[in-house]
Amino acid sequence: MPYIELESHLPGITGLLEYRKDSAQPIRDLTQYLFRGPSTLTEAERELIATIVSYGNECKFCTTAHTAAADLLTGDASITEQIKQDIQTAQVSGKMKALLNIAVLTRKGGKNVTAEAIEVAKAANATDLEIHDTVLIAALFCLYNRYVDGLATALPADAGYYNVLAERLVNHGYTRLPQGYDHLKKTAAQ
Amino acid sequence: MPYIELESHLPGITGLLEYRKDSAQPIRDLTQYLFRGPSTLTEAERELIATIVSYGNECKFCTTAHTAAADLLTGDASITEQIKQDIQTAQVSGKMKALLNIAVLTRKGGKNVTAEAIEVAKAANATDLEIHDTVLIAALFCLYNRYVDGLATALPADAGYYNVLAERLVNHGYTRLPQGYDHLKKTAAQ
Repeated sequence: MPYIELESHLPGITGLLEYRKDSAQPIRDLTQYLFRGPSTLTEAERELIATIVSYGNECKFCTTAHTAAADLLTGDASITEQIKQDIQTAQVSGKMKALLNIAVLTRKGGKNVTAEAIEVAKAANATDLEIHDTVLIAALFCLYNRYVDGLATALPADAGYYNVLAERLVNHGYTRLPQGYDHLKKTAAQ
Repeated sequence: MPYIELESHLPGITGLLEYRKDSAQPIRDLTQYLFRGPSTLTEAERELIATIVSYGNECKFCTTAHTAAADLLTGDASITEQIKQDIQTAQVSGKMKALLNIAVLTRKGGKNVTAEAIEVAKAANATDLEIHDTVLIAALFCLYNRYVDGLATALPADAGYYNVLAERLVNHGYTRLPQGYDHLKKTAAQ
């Protein structure tokens, strides 16, 4: 049971974002910008960064949700499985291996990101902006994972929830659902 | 030297917020809301939470900046020193001891926040909203600390910088400086 009173039909982050809408708005805006804004990283690549960080932080809600989103975007569920096992042998580009490694180091703590890890990324043609966004996305998920688990939010009763959520994140992004999408909200909440 | 090209006269977080203004805006908005928005926690108490988390994450820039801000707000620099040594014997209220403890646990990882730690806070009359905000502020500083150190941002050349920054945070908040405050920016950058 969550440590604070949240709407019981809204698991994980969704209940927290409804609990305090004023703080939720900039969190949504930041996520929307980093994940769906202009970038030379694909949306799938950005979801892989969220996935590997949430997995390392052992945040079940975030890991499952972003794995589902990444899988929907790549169309190949084996990739998320591979990066969780071993980034270096996963079927992703050399640049993504280097960026996922930076994300893992950022998760452990800012000082863990070494000049060598950055050099490997730059040698694989990662730009400053891609390195910046990787560190910031990893840092953002260190926020999300702590927010979700620090308040002991509930997991969805039905695992099918994650696929509905992933469809929503992929097709509608991280901002609030506009009017007219209440059916999606209701489906997600079941 | 920072891992990406930042304006050399802007140390720590300040250079990052200028580097990517679009992602900076929601980060500023979230911080402004949590630190200067309506709350039953004083501004000083909220700065103490930022201080203890940054200290635990060994982020020198954030620790020094928020220590200076807390000191300016409390008017007693011994309090930040005390909480760094031992929260339980520090000269803060029982509620703040419990909330600072929750912040420390959140910093270590969301799953570290125990039902017992929450019970202690509730027994000391902490509200759900205060517990929520404590976890979110701690999580936000896990983002900031990783962002600042993960990209190896520079420290200010002059330690007096932190007092100027603290004055700015206390009197002008976390939003961008309005037109007409360029002198403050220049002073901070020296």
